[in-house]
Amino acid sequence: MGRWEPNARGRLEQAALDLYREHGFEQTTAAQIAERAGLTERTFFRHYPDKREVLFAGAHELEQAFVDSLAETPAAAAPIDAIASTLETVAAFFLERHEFARQRQAVIVANAELRERELVKLASLSAALAATLRRRGVQDPAASITAEAGIAVFKVGFERWVGSSGERTLADFLRESLDELKALTAGR
Amino acid sequence: MGRWEPNARGRLEQAALDLYREHGFEQTTAAQIAERAGLTERTFFRHYPDKREVLFAGAHELEQAFVDSLAETPAAAAPIDAIASTLETVAAFFLERHEFARQRQAVIVANAELRERELVKLASLSAALAATLRRRGVQDPAASITAEAGIAVFKVGFERWVGSSGERTLADFLRESLDELKALTAGR
Repeated sequence: MGRWEPNARGRLEQAALDLYREHGFEQTTAAQIAERAGLTERTFFRHYPDKREVLFAGAHELEQAFVDSLAETPAAAAPIDAIASTLETVAAFFLERHEFARQRQAVIVANAELRERELVKLASLSAALAATLRRRGVQDPAASITAEAGIAVFKVGFERWVGSSGERTLADFLRESLDELKALTAGR
Repeated sequence: MGRWEPNARGRLEQAALDLYREHGFEQTTAAQIAERAGLTERTFFRHYPDKREVLFAGAHELEQAFVDSLAETPAAAAPIDAIASTLETVAAFFLERHEFARQRQAVIVANAELRERELVKLASLSAALAATLRRRGVQDPAASITAEAGIAVFKVGFERWVGSSGERTLADFLRESLDELKALTAGR
């Protein structure tokens, strides 16, 4: 490992986002990102395998937060309540991150490869949630449908939060999205 | 256009599936698929842009079936009933297709690029359903969450049907999957 660079990841993330928005994702190189961040290309590659993964650096942490939170809900909780509580916990990770999330989403929506990577991330999240539910004794198809429904709620709520002014929290949007799912299936 | 080849698409699809299963998707070329089907490479490219799209040739038709069926449900129907009726209609497309779907799924699961393409197809389906619901006067987030939930039900039911012996129909699995979603959100 090289010498310690204060907040290298945060600086690389913001530099990448700025360049992707100014010149487009395809036109930006890892060297340019490193330069903009005042770091070396070598430092870039110590933190990220490629320029795409800068935008998905939090994916593993997010999945772990989903899985840990779901695993920690009381065993007696109904799956829908376990999902609701998991979404509340996960939303806390995005406090103070609205502007970053908004900029990141704009870059992703503009590029097919990044949209695909985002779909893969959500599918992986769903599979991890289903596996966690099965370990808690939930049978299939309940485990799969609970996980898919939880991710559907997260996806819709997250996209609406990103598109909002940022005054309401992600937790508000996730609760609204979950309430909407309940209203739907109740036939209202 | 060249001369008419009886059931060229069906022959190319089956030849492609056979070769992908025998040698893997990466190792198979369009020329080999055409040869196995007893057709020319030129005929292959008249029907498909590349070897990947052979496996997704029905995606557009499936999306159209989803959208048409949803658009045709009575305006007074609750969104959940519109989704249920749409899933019934769509399931009819897969009658007599279990073996083909099973072989296709095995190829897709084995290849990351194909899994991504399948996720893109489902995301496109969801977006098309949400747009159809909005045209029917359903507001957001209800339109988005209804579409995502409908696709979640389809995905889980479809995967279970593909993994089954094929004695029960896809419609059975989709109904089961929808009932499971209702039980989940009712907190049972």
